[in-house]
Amino acid sequence: MSTLSMSSFATRLHSRIQQTGTAALVGLDPRWDQLPQPIRGRHDDRPTAETAAAAFRDFCCGIIDAVADLVPAVKPQVAFFEQLGAAGFSALREIMQHARERQLLVIADAKRGDIGSTAAAYADAWLAGADPGAAPFPADALTVNAYLGRDTLEPFLTAAKERHAGIYVLVRTSNPGATDFQNLSGTTPDAAPRKLYEAVADCVRQLNAEYWPEETYGSVGAVVGATWPQELVELRKRMPNAPLLIPGYGSQGGTAADVLPALDGEGFGALINNSRGINFAYRLPKYKDGFTESQWQEAAAAATRDMIADLSAAQLKIFAR
Amino acid sequence: MSTLSMSSFATRLHSRIQQTGTAALVGLDPRWDQLPQPIRGRHDDRPTAETAAAAFRDFCCGIIDAVADLVPAVKPQVAFFEQLGAAGFSALREIMQHARERQLLVIADAKRGDIGSTAAAYADAWLAGADPGAAPFPADALTVNAYLGRDTLEPFLTAAKERHAGIYVLVRTSNPGATDFQNLSGTTPDAAPRKLYEAVADCVRQLNAEYWPEETYGSVGAVVGATWPQELVELRKRMPNAPLLIPGYGSQGGTAADVLPALDGEGFGALINNSRGINFAYRLPKYKDGFTESQWQEAAAAATRDMIADLSAAQLKIFAR
Repeated sequence: MSTLSMSSFATRLHSRIQQTGTAALVGLDPRWDQLPQPIRGRHDDRPTAETAAAAFRDFCCGIIDAVADLVPAVKPQVAFFEQLGAAGFSALREIMQHARERQLLVIADAKRGDIGSTAAAYADAWLAGADPGAAPFPADALTVNAYLGRDTLEPFLTAAKERHAGIYVLVRTSNPGATDFQNLSGTTPDAAPRKLYEAVADCVRQLNAEYWPEETYGSVGAVVGATWPQELVELRKRMPNAPLLIPGYGSQGGTAADVLPALDGEGFGALINNSRGINFAYRLPKYKDGFTESQWQEAAAAATRDMIADLSAAQLKIFAR
Repeated sequence: MSTLSMSSFATRLHSRIQQTGTAALVGLDPRWDQLPQPIRGRHDDRPTAETAAAAFRDFCCGIIDAVADLVPAVKPQVAFFEQLGAAGFSALREIMQHARERQLLVIADAKRGDIGSTAAAYADAWLAGADPGAAPFPADALTVNAYLGRDTLEPFLTAAKERHAGIYVLVRTSNPGATDFQNLSGTTPDAAPRKLYEAVADCVRQLNAEYWPEETYGSVGAVVGATWPQELVELRKRMPNAPLLIPGYGSQGGTAADVLPALDGEGFGALINNSRGINFAYRLPKYKDGFTESQWQEAAAAATRDMIADLSAAQLKIFAR
């Protein structure tokens, strides 16, 4: 293994950000009815789980090939594969392996969470870290849900530490209903007043200090939606050592100006996700005229380059302030 | 389809509880190093994912056969299958199908949760409801995590309503760290002071009132750990129409007296889960002398009968008060 493969997830992530010069993250969200015709092929009307899974594999590997030289990482959304049963999971594994062969980091968006030995089983399923052979679904990092409590994160952290993997804890999600529970504002018996998402953020900060005390960024990241820009600014300060994963740019309404405060002066510290705007660029008015349906990969690459340029322009402005 | 198969999940559940005369639920938690030798067979030292998955399938189907005439439902823990990759998911599907053929209801313990169309994909993966062919993993009900907000539960509810399936929302989990976030006590802008788990419980109550207004019990259940008996009593009152799923009986320390307040006068309204105490009864001091390792199924059946008797004795005492 190279020296870098013995480095923490955060170090490997920032090395990739440096190589590519961008914090753009490409989500892999295959939706059958939006796949380009050349991929849906002759199964259009009634795909079986197996043919749909093969189509998802071909599509996602095609997107990976289109963006591999442009971005540091990809984020497959596990639910879309899960709905195809075991065939979907076989396809997901192939896609993750292909991404790793193309030197992309892989963040599995599965939002898992459970207690004790069950959490350890989820960690074994997903946290391959630096060694692609170390888990059936070889992710560099996994999104997790902390509702059950800090003790339920620890099996993930033990695995992450050992395998140079990372986790991203859901702190503030991008959906409209995020405030329902995450904004509950109050106190636990032994803490100052704070909102639920702030309490989860404080837990993330503490875990980085405990598990990765020597590193500028630990390997406990946090998901914070671009659709809540004010909260993003506050949460960046509250978790200075956490790599952020920021959904909600593009289709969900977040702009480059909204997300840029997440990055530090070197452009590190966050990944900005775009799924639909890249996966299905060929269907968007902006790219429809320039690309045919068969050129869905070229359209995805163009949309990725446009996103990178959008982030860079905003970044220059912000860092010049 | 029979009339019953056109009934809601809660109705089907209570019909099964009536048939079997118990609220005992058997968890399916296959752990390789605790499987009986006849199942581990010759793969003991280095099982592959495929041989381990075959062993999990044989073991879980064996437990199902041992308890099918005794209890209303089984609860496979998805994490243990997920750690075996696609082979684990194939085995899980076979196990779920086998349980349904034996007339058991199946509650998939997967603790899923995500936003919008992603939540809908999880619902498509798991919520088969009354029609075993309606999902690749044919569960009657699924455990879900509500951290992301009420809007993220709605795709599950739409599917549950349509397919006569159910969900169990994590309200108060059984682990020691459950208080970390679930006990955050305070207010949202438009609500009275309450703890996070109380806010989630109130959401469960409202969803049952909206989606199943005509039924004594709706099909939005709640997970409440037996390890928090005082909270269980309060939460039973707070969600009078929610079927409860109660982990923590047995190995985790919850007693029959702790869990019985969850049941109504007819013995409906809750399922009491036991996983390790039944799956691996053959290893427990209580059953070790009476059963050989080859009689692991007989030991599981004996442990199930003992649990049923324990619950019944406590129930008689409580209802006699």
